[in-house]
Amino acid sequence: MKHTFSVTIERRSGLSDPEGATASRALTDLGFAGVHSVSFGKVISIELEADTAQEAATQVEAMCRKLLANPVIENYTIENVS
Amino acid sequence: MKHTFSVTIERRSGLSDPEGATASRALTDLGFAGVHSVSFGKVISIELEADTAQEAATQVEAMCRKLLANPVIENYTIENVS
Repeated sequence: MKHTFSVTIERRSGLSDPEGATASRALTDLGFAGVHSVSFGKVISIELEADTAQEAATQVEAMCRKLLANPVIENYTIENVS
Repeated sequence: MKHTFSVTIERRSGLSDPEGATASRALTDLGFAGVHSVSFGKVISIELEADTAQEAATQVEAMCRKLLANPVIENYTIENVS
């Protein structure tokens, strides 16, 4: 059975986010005066085959730990969007 | 009044996604045999000052068009998460 998961990976709060800081400045320069902060993260869509949704979720969790996220500087959330 | 928006930017379907293809192969190599496809996108969190949520949404839409997204190859969705 095919399952689709969406993994959102965001930088832990307190860590610097140069991409976000640059975008924030650029938006202010473009005339968006009300911008307080901008921060960037990743969203990864994964389609995988597994017998149950629970088994698929366990696999996606393992994928995040082993490859997709860097737990030292990133938090991730996993959502079943099948 | 402060508003927080989450912008999700994903590659238009049909376009190649080298980062996704590489992650998919790497996951298969790591033993996740059931992986069908992996695709990467960006999620941008924006805090901004605006009088109304409607006005804030209009500004975020303009930010996407002018700077954050490339409409030729990307789709974006805007969500108010205040």
